[in-house]
Amino acid sequence: MSKIKVGVLGATGMVGQNYVRLLENHPWFEVSFVAASPSSAGKKYSEAVSGRWHMPVPVPDAVKGLVVEDASQVAKAVGKCAFVFSALEMDKQAVQNLECEYAAHDIAVVSNASAHRWTEDVPMLIPEINPDHLAAVETQRRNRGWQKGFIVVKPNCSLQSYLTPVYALMQAGYEVRRMILATMQAVSGAGYPGVASMDIVDNVIPFIGGEEEKSEKEPLKILGRIEGGKFVNDASLVISAHCNRVPVVDGHTACVSIEFGPKKPSKDEVLAVWRKFRAVPQELKLPLAPLQPIIYLDAANRPQPRKDRDNDKAMAVTIGRLRECPVFDLRFVGLSHNTVRGAAGGGILNAELLKAQGFLD
Amino acid sequence: MSKIKVGVLGATGMVGQNYVRLLENHPWFEVSFVAASPSSAGKKYSEAVSGRWHMPVPVPDAVKGLVVEDASQVAKAVGKCAFVFSALEMDKQAVQNLECEYAAHDIAVVSNASAHRWTEDVPMLIPEINPDHLAAVETQRRNRGWQKGFIVVKPNCSLQSYLTPVYALMQAGYEVRRMILATMQAVSGAGYPGVASMDIVDNVIPFIGGEEEKSEKEPLKILGRIEGGKFVNDASLVISAHCNRVPVVDGHTACVSIEFGPKKPSKDEVLAVWRKFRAVPQELKLPLAPLQPIIYLDAANRPQPRKDRDNDKAMAVTIGRLRECPVFDLRFVGLSHNTVRGAAGGGILNAELLKAQGFLD
Amino acid sequence: MSKIKVGVLGATGMVGQNYVRLLENHPWFEVSFVAASPSSAGKKYSEAVSGRWHMPVPVPDAVKGLVVEDASQVAKAVGKCAFVFSALEMDKQAVQNLECEYAAHDIAVVSNASAHRWTEDVPMLIPEINPDHLAAVETQRRNRGWQKGFIVVKPNCSLQSYLTPVYALMQAGYEVRRMILATMQAVSGAGYPGVASMDIVDNVIPFIGGEEEKSEKEPLKILGRIEGGKFVNDASLVISAHCNRVPVVDGHTACVSIEFGPKKPSKDEVLAVWRKFRAVPQELKLPLAPLQPIIYLDAANRPQPRKDRDNDKAMAVTIGRLRECPVFDLRFVGLSHNTVRGAAGGGILNAELLKAQGFLD
Amino acid sequence: MSKIKVGVLGATGMVGQNYVRLLENHPWFEVSFVAASPSSAGKKYSEAVSGRWHMPVPVPDAVKGLVVEDASQVAKAVGKCAFVFSALEMDKQAVQNLECEYAAHDIAVVSNASAHRWTEDVPMLIPEINPDHLAAVETQRRNRGWQKGFIVVKPNCSLQSYLTPVYALMQAGYEVRRMILATMQAVSGAGYPGVASMDIVDNVIPFIGGEEEKSEKEPLKILGRIEGGKFVNDASLVISAHCNRVPVVDGHTACVSIEFGPKKPSKDEVLAVWRKFRAVPQELKLPLAPLQPIIYLDAANRPQPRKDRDNDKAMAVTIGRLRECPVFDLRFVGLSHNTVRGAAGGGILNAELLKAQGFLD
Repeated sequence: MSKIKVGVLGATGMVGQNYVRLLENHPWFEVSFVAASPSSAGKKYSEAVSGRWHMPVPVPDAVKGLVVEDASQVAKAVGKCAFVFSALEMDKQAVQNLECEYAAHDIAVVSNASAHRWTEDVPMLIPEINPDHLAAVETQRRNRGWQKGFIVVKPNCSLQSYLTPVYALMQAGYEVRRMILATMQAVSGAGYPGVASMDIVDNVIPFIGGEEEKSEKEPLKILGRIEGGKFVNDASLVISAHCNRVPVVDGHTACVSIEFGPKKPSKDEVLAVWRKFRAVPQELKLPLAPLQPIIYLDAANRPQPRKDRDNDKAMAVTIGRLRECPVFDLRFVGLSHNTVRGAAGGGILNAELLKAQGFLD
Repeated sequence: MSKIKVGVLGATGMVGQNYVRLLENHPWFEVSFVAASPSSAGKKYSEAVSGRWHMPVPVPDAVKGLVVEDASQVAKAVGKCAFVFSALEMDKQAVQNLECEYAAHDIAVVSNASAHRWTEDVPMLIPEINPDHLAAVETQRRNRGWQKGFIVVKPNCSLQSYLTPVYALMQAGYEVRRMILATMQAVSGAGYPGVASMDIVDNVIPFIGGEEEKSEKEPLKILGRIEGGKFVNDASLVISAHCNRVPVVDGHTACVSIEFGPKKPSKDEVLAVWRKFRAVPQELKLPLAPLQPIIYLDAANRPQPRKDRDNDKAMAVTIGRLRECPVFDLRFVGLSHNTVRGAAGGGILNAELLKAQGFLD
Repeated sequence: MSKIKVGVLGATGMVGQNYVRLLENHPWFEVSFVAASPSSAGKKYSEAVSGRWHMPVPVPDAVKGLVVEDASQVAKAVGKCAFVFSALEMDKQAVQNLECEYAAHDIAVVSNASAHRWTEDVPMLIPEINPDHLAAVETQRRNRGWQKGFIVVKPNCSLQSYLTPVYALMQAGYEVRRMILATMQAVSGAGYPGVASMDIVDNVIPFIGGEEEKSEKEPLKILGRIEGGKFVNDASLVISAHCNRVPVVDGHTACVSIEFGPKKPSKDEVLAVWRKFRAVPQELKLPLAPLQPIIYLDAANRPQPRKDRDNDKAMAVTIGRLRECPVFDLRFVGLSHNTVRGAAGGGILNAELLKAQGFLD
Repeated sequence: MSKIKVGVLGATGMVGQNYVRLLENHPWFEVSFVAASPSSAGKKYSEAVSGRWHMPVPVPDAVKGLVVEDASQVAKAVGKCAFVFSALEMDKQAVQNLECEYAAHDIAVVSNASAHRWTEDVPMLIPEINPDHLAAVETQRRNRGWQKGFIVVKPNCSLQSYLTPVYALMQAGYEVRRMILATMQAVSGAGYPGVASMDIVDNVIPFIGGEEEKSEKEPLKILGRIEGGKFVNDASLVISAHCNRVPVVDGHTACVSIEFGPKKPSKDEVLAVWRKFRAVPQELKLPLAPLQPIIYLDAANRPQPRKDRDNDKAMAVTIGRLRECPVFDLRFVGLSHNTVRGAAGGGILNAELLKAQGFLD
């Protein structure tokens, strides 16, 4: 089987670089098109990222020589790739328009950008949680007159550390009513140059613009349902998120207190739910799917970002410290790799799901 | 007025060093006695701390030449000092016994150790909150047949970042019922050598042994009252604390969500309470008392440990980000300097209160 | 005596903020004029630095309300200040022109900028080393037709960690012929935002643009002499500097190997020279002069930036590890505080020297 | 081909854990025996490292269940493994004796310990440099009456960052006479708990006990020759090493100035030598050998530890910044991964060389 040709929009930025890195040797996809801002357009990819390649491996040979295109010239992509990963960094309206334009040109868009997360016919996917939201793709095409194109997005990186474990409990029949959580987020989440070193060496920044709102609201759409072709948010859950930046390179950690509805699981029941949790990406054996989406560690002082972020190709959520909460019912610590599971890796898993379910044919 | 002679027990450890540093040039007290473990006994203080002096200033000249005594030989202290600061690092029972022995020798003990925090006639003091708990000193002397000696303790460093602001609200008539909070604590809190660098560079440790229990329970005694000569814990408040270690040298940060009783203040009312809050240490103009115990910063991304921990002689609590909590009522971020306000500085403030109220005459 | 009114050019940047901070309560000078780029002009200083004030103390009350002027409108400064500290961040030619314009308006310029370091009649000062270079001020006025104005500059921050100790040896009669050194420099040296956190957490950057050249060449002018009204570089010394950025907030450390001429001091002779070294700033008792310009520590593992950078008002050079060099003669480790001694503090010391010697009357 | 059974002495420490991790799935070797101090003896390996497993991957399944033996009971290893990797952490004499005892029991010892580095018939190996030193194995057996056993050691981790590139130049005919270098070494080099976080967050420690001596002397044996069955040190080279600890997890960086003999290569010649350098491990295609032992990066600011330490299985030396030295001839920056290339990975490469050359049959 020949591989599906894919493009990367915003290919020279941090998320774009992660796409290029993670797609090297991918069994289904190969990067055939890279696009970025006009300032990079016309350069070879290796030149465009020279001096600002942040990956721990060299630029893949297969991408080095690709000429970077101007991402706003959509016609350049036609015929060069079946779909694109969007890591565009522009203002919201510009990203919305550009992603729609790609879709209108029969090029599916698997996006990391936040622009379309609240567009009413665009699904915000975590493949382990809401693969059924892909039903919105048909609605989207119908609404907009697109033939093959469509847009799917992934949520913010901060919520990956806790939403899958919470969803697993909901799915097992335990209503979760309220959550108060605090995140300790890695500097890579802010892109490059992102956080100034003067702000983070020997320091913590207890604020990340827009992050708390995303962490509180995006889960409600992901956990929601489709009614009459529209997304209806989950109305049973309320979240309070305190988001902090800490001197960690990669890996977002979250301390979470949860309150259940009347049916409250014991700690053993929670552990059993987490340990046996498997979902569609595991059933479909998607290449980048973690074998075990939720890894629970028994050691008293885990998970820790540097030691656990790379678990299972950096795609697993690692959990620990499940214990009673004096105020709510239970509390735990969750961790996920923000630039892999929470960004490019999550985008690739979305694309793998789309491919496996026939949306990219 | 000649200065009161004081001793430091555990003088060679990190907290002891901070006492020695902070007492240099103190207007009321002068260090005349230093004691530590038998391995340091007999050495000059400057030799005993050679190669492990962690303060950012040199060893004070007045202490350099003092001969370190064995802290367990209580008789050595008699006649050399009016009271001692205890920063003993031994097992709980040994600390309890030794501190009692000092008290029995007419030497008051102002302790940083946790050993006597739950002893039923020993007050656990934050001078801005419960100076009235000093009434227990008389009970203590009566119970134990001590003449001049007594023991007072200070609470754990972690709770200094949020308890004073919460108390200020309670004092203003707003009942606080529930709090869920997460701390990001500095490595200096673990003493020396303490946290291994392999555990904290590019990392977070979401666990500190015993810290969550202390953070949850000690406030209840501090906020409690004395009835029939015994401490009765506050029964109206429940706390859930998630305690984390982060790569910060000094300064504990806390993200706090609070639920009030039926009477709920507006944000403006909270700010007004905090800004005008002054307490006994301020009225008495104690030398190390912060002029303003609670400093509120308006900037969206403050407080930050490196930038705000030294506010007002490192004795103030700095607060920011007061905002609505989607789950409880309000939330904020608090910060205090753990080795000053939360340790030696807090101990000195306790001693200043004792002196001002006639307990050290 | 009323204080001399001074201005700060580039007052909103990192170096400018340090000037504002360090001049609070200065016995001789008071800030009466602040200027920056047009984007800050017209705002109150406290507004102009809001959200980007990086000092560990609040904005001084006396400066908060000053209206920031456009630094390029030189006439605004006339009558408002006797001299200015220049921390301008513009291209070299623009800084040169603007500093000359201030001087032409009878406003002396004490500059941190590198623009005029190699201008042939401008002295590059370290008050402990070459106060005699102030003779160039007269030449400068004559050359340029200035009445009261003039320009003096300070050298790059990196060389402060080793040049004074090396000069002390030269002054004691030991020729120093060759030096190979490696620096480990703090992130604050790059200003704000400066070094990206993604480049420095768990990392070292073995390159700082232009820094090695400055570290190798500027000492030659400082150690040089004036002949016929012109600076003649020292020709006896050759330096090789390897400059590195490390995850340290403040404090530049240097590892130095030195080769003497035929007359080689013993280690004891070197220590004696360093310990007794005092210079013009000490004789004049300049307010910010360190009492002892070179502090030697005996402990095997010192100096260390976090523990020693603040020695003597952060104005001393702290030295340690003097030992034989297998290749050259001796080697040692030097440390100085880059944003105080190496930047604003060094500038203020220059101004104090100028004042004490009658150049600012 | 069935795999060769190997033991790990000191298996629970940091280096031992790295052996266990790196040998998982090794094509030639499998861990069949683990030994440590008496306190771990009798436990399953997974229990013995519980709470102190520092690797970024889980304990390999094949080792989890092995019972840890007391390393001092040599007889326990007989029949269980063909050779052992020694990562013993005991005093020098004890390690010397114990390693000899293993050898006397027909068990070859491939050691990371420093105890036998200067034993006169023990080779100190870097497979790319002195594979011919294995001739000493026969001498060793003859001297000591050992049949199959022998001891080979690897040098200190610090010199791996620069010795191979320097050797490559020597081998190409350029005599290197003098080197002055400064290292910036990772905290993992100090083992666990090793460096206290209070000593390294926002700090540099300009001293590592014994490290400068090792860095200066060990190269002379490695570059030396065997004459009459004895090692004769290289006498043409003198090294001065300044060793520093920096807040980096893994990867030692070195800034190196070198002086050649009369025949001086140009920069282009040096680059050509480095780029084409291949040695015995590459010719033999040893499994853990880097394809290219010396990787030169053109970017002005590389190598950097976090970004380059993992190059080619973390076994390559990465070099950059080759440029003129004002004092000597040329200078450059070198980097290698201290716990892989500089410790367990280097030990495994030694064993692979031994196997390929018939010493482990």
